[in-house]
Amino acid sequence: MSDAAPPHIEITTLNWVPAFARGFVRDLRPRWACEEAGFEYDLRLIDVADRPEWHFKEQPWGQVPTAKIGNVRLFESGSILLHLGEYSDKLLPSDPQWRADAISWVFAALNSVEPMVFELGNITLFAKDEEWAKLRRDSLHEALARRLSRLADAMDTREWLAGNFSIADIAMATVLREVESNDRLEQHPVLCDYLERALARPAFGRALQAQFDTIDSNAPEMAD
Amino acid sequence: MSDAAPPHIEITTLNWVPAFARGFVRDLRPRWACEEAGFEYDLRLIDVADRPEWHFKEQPWGQVPTAKIGNVRLFESGSILLHLGEYSDKLLPSDPQWRADAISWVFAALNSVEPMVFELGNITLFAKDEEWAKLRRDSLHEALARRLSRLADAMDTREWLAGNFSIADIAMATVLREVESNDRLEQHPVLCDYLERALARPAFGRALQAQFDTIDSNAPEMAD
Repeated sequence: MSDAAPPHIEITTLNWVPAFARGFVRDLRPRWACEEAGFEYDLRLIDVADRPEWHFKEQPWGQVPTAKIGNVRLFESGSILLHLGEYSDKLLPSDPQWRADAISWVFAALNSVEPMVFELGNITLFAKDEEWAKLRRDSLHEALARRLSRLADAMDTREWLAGNFSIADIAMATVLREVESNDRLEQHPVLCDYLERALARPAFGRALQAQFDTIDSNAPEMAD
Repeated sequence: MSDAAPPHIEITTLNWVPAFARGFVRDLRPRWACEEAGFEYDLRLIDVADRPEWHFKEQPWGQVPTAKIGNVRLFESGSILLHLGEYSDKLLPSDPQWRADAISWVFAALNSVEPMVFELGNITLFAKDEEWAKLRRDSLHEALARRLSRLADAMDTREWLAGNFSIADIAMATVLREVESNDRLEQHPVLCDYLERALARPAFGRALQAQFDTIDSNAPEMAD
């Protein structure tokens, strides 16, 4: 159903996050996809300070984003990206092999790269004062460097992961962007160039600004 | 294209693995899916001792499985499960909400549960003598227990994750089965029952035996 008119899209996310997460909330992925495809979307905001119990019925871990696309509810950003992809060739190619490549790369980004990046964030941010985190740092860096080296080999001279720009690039670029904030991508120039190319897309800029706008307009009032 | 005749299916996997991995090679997922749907498949075996460079062109990390379904090449087990699902209602429901639930749960299993289970395996197996692994054990157990507790809440009285049995259950049960081998699932009786129900399916038994057969028939000859 490529390039069918999209049904109504509602993205559920947090109303506010602290500074370290500003620009990194996972709603960035479906926001970016909607901007690429020219889809409008509404937001449903969850109070970060009082996460409602109903949200756990829609998202088992209480995370964001979730989405409602037409009458269909989805959770996990990969699943939302795939579903949005059904409505536009700009997100998911119609050629069977490119389509399969794009979907394989979405899983590769979220299942084979993001977990290492997430653990690196854990070590450098949340658990940074724990002894295990200090001892783990080097081996995790090495494991991630090996994986990124293979990713750079796979990218080689490609512009995007699966032919034209697709949801695969939204998934991978949002993961690599966190490597950059936690560590250095510099030893992999192919990946630096790829990430720069992805983040230079106007649709990414609009999605990021939209996330900032949501967060900034719901900042809690601080006592002087 | 539910219940369309499936095209030719070829699964690429390792010809042999050591005892600790026997029964846990990820080819179990597409094998199980094929058994559930009644699809025949051929194997293409990679020599574990001499992993060929061409394999890295098909799978960026050099992992297994990959698959060729008709003329379409896929990698990452989640992507292969989704593609197989397009050929049978026994794998992926046709009702739009159940279908979306099944896909969301495939991502949930592989992106939000498996990474913790994988790191637990890392700690208890590969890095067990490292100081960081010993110090990390308790906090990782606690994080996984919290996530499994939420999964048990979500399962509640359901038999399967998305209506009837689906690829979501293949993904989640193969993840939970590794929790059992690394740790105890016993504090989550809902999940123990779910896992037992999944692994009692004849299709799982056939898939597991088929993996054993491949491994056992390619065991390296050991010097006396």
